[in-house]
Amino acid sequence: MLIVMKPTATEDQIEEAVEFIKAKGFDTHISKGDIHTVIGAVGDKSIDMRDVEILDGVDNIIKISTSYKLASRAFKQDDTVVDVNGVKFGGEYCAMIAGPCTIESYEQMDETAKQLAAIGVRVLRGGAFKPRTSPYSFQGLGEEGLKIIREVADKYNMVVASEVMESSQIDLFVEYSDILQVGARNMQNFNLLRDLSYIKKPIILKRGLSSTIEEWLMSAEYLLSDGNGDIILCERGIRTFERATRNTLDISAIPVIKKLSHLPIIIDPSHGTGLRDKVLPMSRASIAAGADGIMIEVHHNPVKALCDGPQSLLPKDYEKLFNDVKAIAPLIGKQIN
Amino acid sequence: MLIVMKPTATEDQIEEAVEFIKAKGFDTHISKGDIHTVIGAVGDKSIDMRDVEILDGVDNIIKISTSYKLASRAFKQDDTVVDVNGVKFGGEYCAMIAGPCTIESYEQMDETAKQLAAIGVRVLRGGAFKPRTSPYSFQGLGEEGLKIIREVADKYNMVVASEVMESSQIDLFVEYSDILQVGARNMQNFNLLRDLSYIKKPIILKRGLSSTIEEWLMSAEYLLSDGNGDIILCERGIRTFERATRNTLDISAIPVIKKLSHLPIIIDPSHGTGLRDKVLPMSRASIAAGADGIMIEVHHNPVKALCDGPQSLLPKDYEKLFNDVKAIAPLIGKQIN
Amino acid sequence: MLIVMKPTATEDQIEEAVEFIKAKGFDTHISKGDIHTVIGAVGDKSIDMRDVEILDGVDNIIKISTSYKLASRAFKQDDTVVDVNGVKFGGEYCAMIAGPCTIESYEQMDETAKQLAAIGVRVLRGGAFKPRTSPYSFQGLGEEGLKIIREVADKYNMVVASEVMESSQIDLFVEYSDILQVGARNMQNFNLLRDLSYIKKPIILKRGLSSTIEEWLMSAEYLLSDGNGDIILCERGIRTFERATRNTLDISAIPVIKKLSHLPIIIDPSHGTGLRDKVLPMSRASIAAGADGIMIEVHHNPVKALCDGPQSLLPKDYEKLFNDVKAIAPLIGKQIN
Amino acid sequence: MLIVMKPTATEDQIEEAVEFIKAKGFDTHISKGDIHTVIGAVGDKSIDMRDVEILDGVDNIIKISTSYKLASRAFKQDDTVVDVNGVKFGGEYCAMIAGPCTIESYEQMDETAKQLAAIGVRVLRGGAFKPRTSPYSFQGLGEEGLKIIREVADKYNMVVASEVMESSQIDLFVEYSDILQVGARNMQNFNLLRDLSYIKKPIILKRGLSSTIEEWLMSAEYLLSDGNGDIILCERGIRTFERATRNTLDISAIPVIKKLSHLPIIIDPSHGTGLRDKVLPMSRASIAAGADGIMIEVHHNPVKALCDGPQSLLPKDYEKLFNDVKAIAPLIGKQIN
Repeated sequence: MLIVMKPTATEDQIEEAVEFIKAKGFDTHISKGDIHTVIGAVGDKSIDMRDVEILDGVDNIIKISTSYKLASRAFKQDDTVVDVNGVKFGGEYCAMIAGPCTIESYEQMDETAKQLAAIGVRVLRGGAFKPRTSPYSFQGLGEEGLKIIREVADKYNMVVASEVMESSQIDLFVEYSDILQVGARNMQNFNLLRDLSYIKKPIILKRGLSSTIEEWLMSAEYLLSDGNGDIILCERGIRTFERATRNTLDISAIPVIKKLSHLPIIIDPSHGTGLRDKVLPMSRASIAAGADGIMIEVHHNPVKALCDGPQSLLPKDYEKLFNDVKAIAPLIGKQIN
Repeated sequence: MLIVMKPTATEDQIEEAVEFIKAKGFDTHISKGDIHTVIGAVGDKSIDMRDVEILDGVDNIIKISTSYKLASRAFKQDDTVVDVNGVKFGGEYCAMIAGPCTIESYEQMDETAKQLAAIGVRVLRGGAFKPRTSPYSFQGLGEEGLKIIREVADKYNMVVASEVMESSQIDLFVEYSDILQVGARNMQNFNLLRDLSYIKKPIILKRGLSSTIEEWLMSAEYLLSDGNGDIILCERGIRTFERATRNTLDISAIPVIKKLSHLPIIIDPSHGTGLRDKVLPMSRASIAAGADGIMIEVHHNPVKALCDGPQSLLPKDYEKLFNDVKAIAPLIGKQIN
Repeated sequence: MLIVMKPTATEDQIEEAVEFIKAKGFDTHISKGDIHTVIGAVGDKSIDMRDVEILDGVDNIIKISTSYKLASRAFKQDDTVVDVNGVKFGGEYCAMIAGPCTIESYEQMDETAKQLAAIGVRVLRGGAFKPRTSPYSFQGLGEEGLKIIREVADKYNMVVASEVMESSQIDLFVEYSDILQVGARNMQNFNLLRDLSYIKKPIILKRGLSSTIEEWLMSAEYLLSDGNGDIILCERGIRTFERATRNTLDISAIPVIKKLSHLPIIIDPSHGTGLRDKVLPMSRASIAAGADGIMIEVHHNPVKALCDGPQSLLPKDYEKLFNDVKAIAPLIGKQIN
Repeated sequence: MLIVMKPTATEDQIEEAVEFIKAKGFDTHISKGDIHTVIGAVGDKSIDMRDVEILDGVDNIIKISTSYKLASRAFKQDDTVVDVNGVKFGGEYCAMIAGPCTIESYEQMDETAKQLAAIGVRVLRGGAFKPRTSPYSFQGLGEEGLKIIREVADKYNMVVASEVMESSQIDLFVEYSDILQVGARNMQNFNLLRDLSYIKKPIILKRGLSSTIEEWLMSAEYLLSDGNGDIILCERGIRTFERATRNTLDISAIPVIKKLSHLPIIIDPSHGTGLRDKVLPMSRASIAAGADGIMIEVHHNPVKALCDGPQSLLPKDYEKLFNDVKAIAPLIGKQIN
């Protein structure tokens, strides 16, 4: 942390600031520039920078270290490869996750999974609990849904990914799901993150709709803090002023994350764009930019889907996407697995 | 809902769209314009508009009714006045909420409350659970904190407002707090909203960092849906590209909400700006724009505050704010109570 | 400027960075922390910080000095008071600017100005050139319009403010207008700013729709760079994800500018909100937050206005606004002049 | 246009609204729904929708037709292919534009162009006028620069693209440049757009930093309105809250534009990200999403570049990019030309 003093700061104010910082447990060193005196604060104590910012004579405070450590590339130089029963995310591997927004019935899941498995998909997704923006919509099958997706996935030798909504559901998901997903709205639900940090299953952490990449990595830090290293980041669009798409899918998050962190990053173009005809081009773009996986909503009959039908692909459209992506991956030294 | 067909839409496509909408339970009527044919869909069924948007020949879909009903001004023309043990929010009344970010000790709360009560504040705030962006920070006193704020508030004849973080804490808050607050990060935690809709205590619902006003009112709808009408909206800043302030406090949300909804709206300029010296002018602005209350972080010793000290005011600075606000309110036909 | 080296930076990389910075004309000093080595660069040379950011071993670069100097509070501690023929903006004075979006006819201007002058308004506004978002709309009366507003303003002893659109129009505006206004879309039209820096008339500089406050002050720096000190900043709303208002009026820009700069700041709530019924509360809020003036669109017959009628007030509604604002100003130590 | 009346609207208010719309030259038809009465207004008159929005009893107004016509896919179903001396943008063709931010000297341009031509680039870019955010930076070589780029391009059989800053420069650019570029800050400089609409050369129109896609197409409409059909859209990043990149490159603009318009769209990942190491992945992503070209800043010695060095690639890095892109294009049915 560096404390930049105002050009008009007095010697007394500088000294006061130094004393304040030392009292918080930091070592200090002072650099006097033409205009500004800068106080360096060295140490790993926790401090709210604004506490210093409001001292007399202080102009502004500059943070040097990142707030996350375990999630940083500095902490771990090699790519983390998350291995879920043989399906790998990260390094040279891309994994394809597909399935309906919501688990509606055994027939629906069986039909969808059969077709996806035939295409080559190894991770089956589906929501069991669906709290919706409207209190008047379908809310999900609950545990019954988890049983269905587990049974169907086992039948087709697939891995299960499903979203956990609150701490009280964690045990249920640990029982039925191979990967637990944290939704965008829960990215900063720190109670949930803390409780999830204790489990030992891979977790997909979606980026919040208005979260910076730094905040996202801080949330990953929560999940990593108890020793579980199998965290997969998932970009799903950020909120901007643009109205032609539901959100703006931030593809540049891929190279940014690759530089800042060792964790794998996947893309959800279904939620990121909100409309079916944008899903294919954005999937290709994601892989071309270096994504470690793609999560797509697929429904065998989107018109009848109880949730998010318009952004769901038909299996046959998905097959086209799968093949496109499979062709692009080797061009950047990766392979679909 | 109106379905606007493309200029190139065929008669068959129009008929198909009409059949689709009827099958969903709507009545339809058709208007043929110079360029576009428009299909009106009348009925109160729930439908994902994108399902229609992807039909052949459809250009776009236009929603006419708002998604919220109970929260709308159309549903209830008169201002809702929330009365918390005699302290009123809404109509001609503004209420002042003040207190520290976090409950740290009995002494701290007692000292702060004593000074606030002397100034005229009737609602005491303080956080008992503090999940922080960093897993390495102070996390709050929990139930012990709630007991402290209750005891202190009773001593000075004040009302208690405190933030509930997850469903498992609701019973605790119902026992100790007069007003339950839902934080910005939980604005779309629909599990929590549903569970809160069953209680009968006033609730402050903060606007999410990147939530539109329409989404905010949808969340209010959740809370209203089981009969509890005592909902107070709280604007606390939205995320924009501007970096000089932590968030951009959306003062225009006040007249917008006043037009769309009957619910009272208060402002939290402490979180909205993040720095102490912006709190006073933004509080005055809020009252001048018609706010029904102001929530301010006050700490008897901000430098020692365990949380958010830099945005906290000293009681003596708060007194100046209280008096300024008290002088402005009558100019717009309101009074501080 | 501070160059923060990576934790893994070698001695050679540090030395290389030091040599690079010295070669650019800076003095350097080095501070070694626990994790990072930080190189301070002292001097007033111009440098693209990213040039340093891409050197090997460099983690990130931190700017200490602001990019603007003449516009900064550090450069000039006292408030600038811009005096336009006796009408003052800044310090303890607020000025009221009012008039139609576009000059349509002598009759229109005369009728509007007569009523505004009677209310107490001393600055008359009106657009002469109106390039519109659609190529198919009314484009303004041009010089004829400027003659009209000049004549009418003189008749009622008012001062003229009008927007200049491109460099070729500057001479015309210098002849007819007392204050030249730079619109939001031209805030970073650096050719225009450079040409305007040579004139000696007061200039109102509107904030760009997506401009940070720092960029805004950089544009003010352009205008100040040739000695004209009479620059008035004007906030008129920024673009955010919110759709209930046309833009989000950033009221907090007022205290932020007051801290960073000595220049006066006024508010344009007509463009900031886009709808008439939001103009009154936002005007009151602006004054309560410390604005040095308010610019309002007023039309004697908004329904017939050729431009922006819906955000225009009737003179009688404006009178209410004027009186409200006049009552609030003294509460914060200011007066309408 | 559809006028949605409030649930509480009286018959008189409905009639009044109908009369108002008819007086503006529209035909009307009325649909009565359960809750809302909706008035359809048919006609191609120009009207400010807010004029209707503020009539008594009106709830909101819905625009049906887009504001742009000539730029729309409805107006022209087939892809526009812009052919610049044999280099094609659009349809099945992607074109590669490369060169330095600023023309600095003959040697610089010659060295860069020689290497780019050898790689296969056929469009050479370079800025002659460089108004910068700081008034204290290098401002470009002007006409001298244009002569240099013309001479060098002819030597290597390349086409020239360069940015025109204001109307007074148009003649100069028509003389020396094959493609005229309109920068992001000028996207809504309607005076400049109008003057450019009269020329007959291809124009690249960059998207404004905070412009919606609809506004961008409106600006294209200006350029198209006098018969010049050779307009190329260029996405270069939008402003969001994210700080890890300079802007957020909106790759989804590619499929969105492809659906709404027949015009070709290219991507500028150099400005869109602001840092060299993000340029390669974002270029691959752009092509994979269907872009009709890529514009890249290349400098034979970025460390010495007078402008934007940090986002410039070395020719050898560019060669890798060129080859990657060339390999991806055929996978989506396109080819680099």
